Amino acid sequence: MDLFRVLNLDELSHGLAGLSMFPYFDTAHYTVSVMALREQPGALEVARRSPFACWFSSMLYCFGGGILSGLMMAEAPIAPLSNSINVLMASVICLCVLYSRYLVFYCPQDMVYSCTALFPVRLVLTGMKEVTRTWKVLGGVAEAHSKYKDGLLVMIAIGWAKGAGGGLISNFEQLVRGVWKPETNELLKMTYPTKITLIGAVLFALQQTQYLAIQKHHLMLLYTVFTVVNKTSMTLTGSSSSPFAPIESVVHRTFFAGPSPSFTSETKTSVVKKGTGESLDRAAVPETSKAPGSSSKTAAHNRGKGSPKKAKVQSESTETESCKKSD
Amino acid sequence: MDLFRVLNLDELSHGLAGLSMFPYFDTAHYTVSVMALREQPGALEVARRSPFACWFSSMLYCFGGGILSGLMMAEAPIAPLSNSINVLMASVICLCVLYSRYLVFYCPQDMVYSCTALFPVRLVLTGMKEVTRTWKVLGGVAEAHSKYKDGLLVMIAIGWAKGAGGGLISNFEQLVRGVWKPETNELLKMTYPTKITLIGAVLFALQQTQYLAIQKHHLMLLYTVFTVVNKTSMTLTGSSSSPFAPIESVVHRTFFAGPSPSFTSETKTSVVKKGTGESLDRAAVPETSKAPGSSSKTAAHNRGKGSPKKAKVQSESTETESCKKSD
Amino acid sequence: MDLFRVLNLDELSHGLAGLSMFPYFDTAHYTVSVMALREQPGALEVARRSPFACWFSSMLYCFGGGILSGLMMAEAPIAPLSNSINVLMASVICLCVLYSRYLVFYCPQDMVYSCTALFPVRLVLTGMKEVTRTWKVLGGVAEAHSKYKDGLLVMIAIGWAKGAGGGLISNFEQLVRGVWKPETNELLKMTYPTKITLIGAVLFALQQTQYLAIQKHHLMLLYTVFTVVNKTSMTLTGSSSSPFAPIESVVHRTFFAGPSPSFTSETKTSVVKKGTGESLDRAAVPETSKAPGSSSKTAAHNRGKGSPKKAKVQSESTETESCKKSD
Repeated sequence: MDLFRVLNLDELSHGLAGLSMFPYFDTAHYTVSVMALREQPGALEVARRSPFACWFSSMLYCFGGGILSGLMMAEAPIAPLSNSINVLMASVICLCVLYSRYLVFYCPQDMVYSCTALFPVRLVLTGMKEVTRTWKVLGGVAEAHSKYKDGLLVMIAIGWAKGAGGGLISNFEQLVRGVWKPETNELLKMTYPTKITLIGAVLFALQQTQYLAIQKHHLMLLYTVFTVVNKTSMTLTGSSSSPFAPIESVVHRTFFAGPSPSFTSETKTSVVKKGTGESLDRAAVPETSKAPGSSSKTAAHNRGKGSPKKAKVQSESTETESCKKSD
Repeated sequence: MDLFRVLNLDELSHGLAGLSMFPYFDTAHYTVSVMALREQPGALEVARRSPFACWFSSMLYCFGGGILSGLMMAEAPIAPLSNSINVLMASVICLCVLYSRYLVFYCPQDMVYSCTALFPVRLVLTGMKEVTRTWKVLGGVAEAHSKYKDGLLVMIAIGWAKGAGGGLISNFEQLVRGVWKPETNELLKMTYPTKITLIGAVLFALQQTQYLAIQKHHLMLLYTVFTVVNKTSMTLTGSSSSPFAPIESVVHRTFFAGPSPSFTSETKTSVVKKGTGESLDRAAVPETSKAPGSSSKTAAHNRGKGSPKKAKVQSESTETESCKKSD
Repeated sequence: MDLFRVLNLDELSHGLAGLSMFPYFDTAHYTVSVMALREQPGALEVARRSPFACWFSSMLYCFGGGILSGLMMAEAPIAPLSNSINVLMASVICLCVLYSRYLVFYCPQDMVYSCTALFPVRLVLTGMKEVTRTWKVLGGVAEAHSKYKDGLLVMIAIGWAKGAGGGLISNFEQLVRGVWKPETNELLKMTYPTKITLIGAVLFALQQTQYLAIQKHHLMLLYTVFTVVNKTSMTLTGSSSSPFAPIESVVHRTFFAGPSPSFTSETKTSVVKKGTGESLDRAAVPETSKAPGSSSKTAAHNRGKGSPKKAKVQSESTETESCKKSD
């Protein structure tokens, strides 16, 4: 692209493409991941009660992408843990962030976390973590391309899995900590990191298959800048809503603004099931698995005495929390 | 077999064996699968709220067999999605069946689904889908045979997984849609498609290992005719009970008609656990995971105020629904 | 080691190393595993209602290690079932232990189980089962070593998975039986078999990588004796608490005796989430997924009318039960 040449960005993009993630960017990625784990409600309690589960959970946060893509490509999911140096780094960081309270002579003010949680530090770390995303997505796409020449969808899936794995397997990561929230997952309600990674996977897959006429290092530069700027602005404004929100809402309103199908579906299914509509309705949203949207009212309805307020607050909190969650 | 020669069925069976599933039979399979998904309670609501999760869910319905058998054979579970044409077909059908309401200028009467749901259309589609089952089971058995020469059990397992995969992974398919019903799965309560597929897997595995003295294309003809006739008659009579029901009940009564072990077990375990029988009983069936059989009463017992009727209705509905579910 | 030569243990250790697990020790392993399954609350009820699910569940108990390590190493998880003889043995034992009641002319006193449950018989079987652990762990470590030369962590993980697989996948084994207890898993609260297997995996991995200056057959002898003696004494004393309990408690008190982080965490997260502390607290422990520690009170809190006693009993029972559970 001439634009790059005009702006003398060729050197920059080449320099970026030659950048090594190890050790600094990896460290940032691990730190942010473990902090995200720590900020999960109840995580510290688990960390105190069963350190091993918490360590494993943090490994899933740090290496989730490699594990998931490994499972999808039938390569050893354990392979990411065979890189001793990185695992050691991640473990040390996990130890510092989660247990500094206990390590530093029981100082209750929890030094390491407080430092990393300082706004400027956090800003830098988050930015650096975003950079690693580009490399992970690109790695996944390339890996898939080497196996499935014309499998565009596979490339996208693997790139996505590698870049946003930690988020995509969050249900099972939570299960390790004894938490189970079937009513929420990254596919039902994508968080910002998942979306941005998906976009990246699509772009790199298109570039890989020559559908997108742009050089790889140029795309890497563009995507990296885009993600970093986005994330930084989000951190600065403290907003958890993605910049695509308006576009999405427009699209959603355009395509799915028809008559709410809920009634239609009920009637249809009830017809199919020969008039057990009411019971079906309950079957659809039993206590243990309520569809997110209707969670508030059903939760209230199922509990002994209806408490809509609490339930609503709960569902909200779940959402905010899931929005905050960085993979 | 002379019988075949006498009846001049050799040509027919050869013709059937040479039949290509693509594109017509595959289309029928995808259509029926997506319709089955759509008729799941709450599916349309999810389709409206998070289209991506619903698309992924329908992919699991359409390609579940390949994904599951891939996992079991340590071959890439993503491989089935590398066949772009089939994925495209399935996606288009998913779009039409689930979203036609929104596509066709918001016509509220939901054309495509209404057409496919017309009885004759449905009858034909269901019959064609049954034909694909033979090919899938046979493919799975052959694949396993090429790896494990004498592993009869493995052949059966893989053939079964490939033919009834969508049903066997239904728990996790539901999880994608935010629904979690741990108290029901295809192994606890096999539905008709799962049973017929298992029988097919056993037959083809025996044929593959020469235990069954019949030529492959003859067996294919027999099995295909059997499944199609069965399914068609079930659709015509609208009964969800398998034709093996009587045999099963006889067998079950013969072997398991002993004294109900429930008491024995309780006492035994309570003895083992030193008289914490009551608590164990609760541990056995906590709120979040009740053994199907006792679901009705425990559900009632756990809820604030006992409502046995509702609970019973619910469990029943779950069963009917799981019976209806076609994989 | 001279010590071995002095004590003339070389022959013994060589003899042990040359010992074949098949058929006697394998039989003992399968028997103890199926008995453990049978003693799970509600298992007999499931065995009666859906024999297939129960058979599959017992296969997971017997071959869980191979299946899990297969998944982790991207080798066919189905492979362990390709060994027809062993599967047949396991199935027969499963049949005898679970269904003898029905087989022996409906004699209600359930002969086979009663015999195997006799104290001396059980003692011998348990001891023999412990012997198989050494071979499984060693096999896993060697297998991992052949793939990842310097991946100490991978060796430990695979050895552990192979030795204690049945326990590690217990959540999903229970799911097959329609039971779902997300609040408990082997990582959150390790049972004795899991711990002893982990120690064994670490030792054999260190020996494999020459960090531990001891010959393999010597280590096998030591570890086997240790496990057998331990398990036997535990069976004799009927205590379900591991011999490491005191050490653990000391370590735990030393490192994690700081100020309970629960408050800190709440405040921190609530600050992060902008004062939705209360709702977070609920989000942290919703009905369907309560962190084990706080299960008692939240369970009481969530239910219509608070019943702390029952809830506490329940959580206790869950623990005892999970302690008893042998993998």
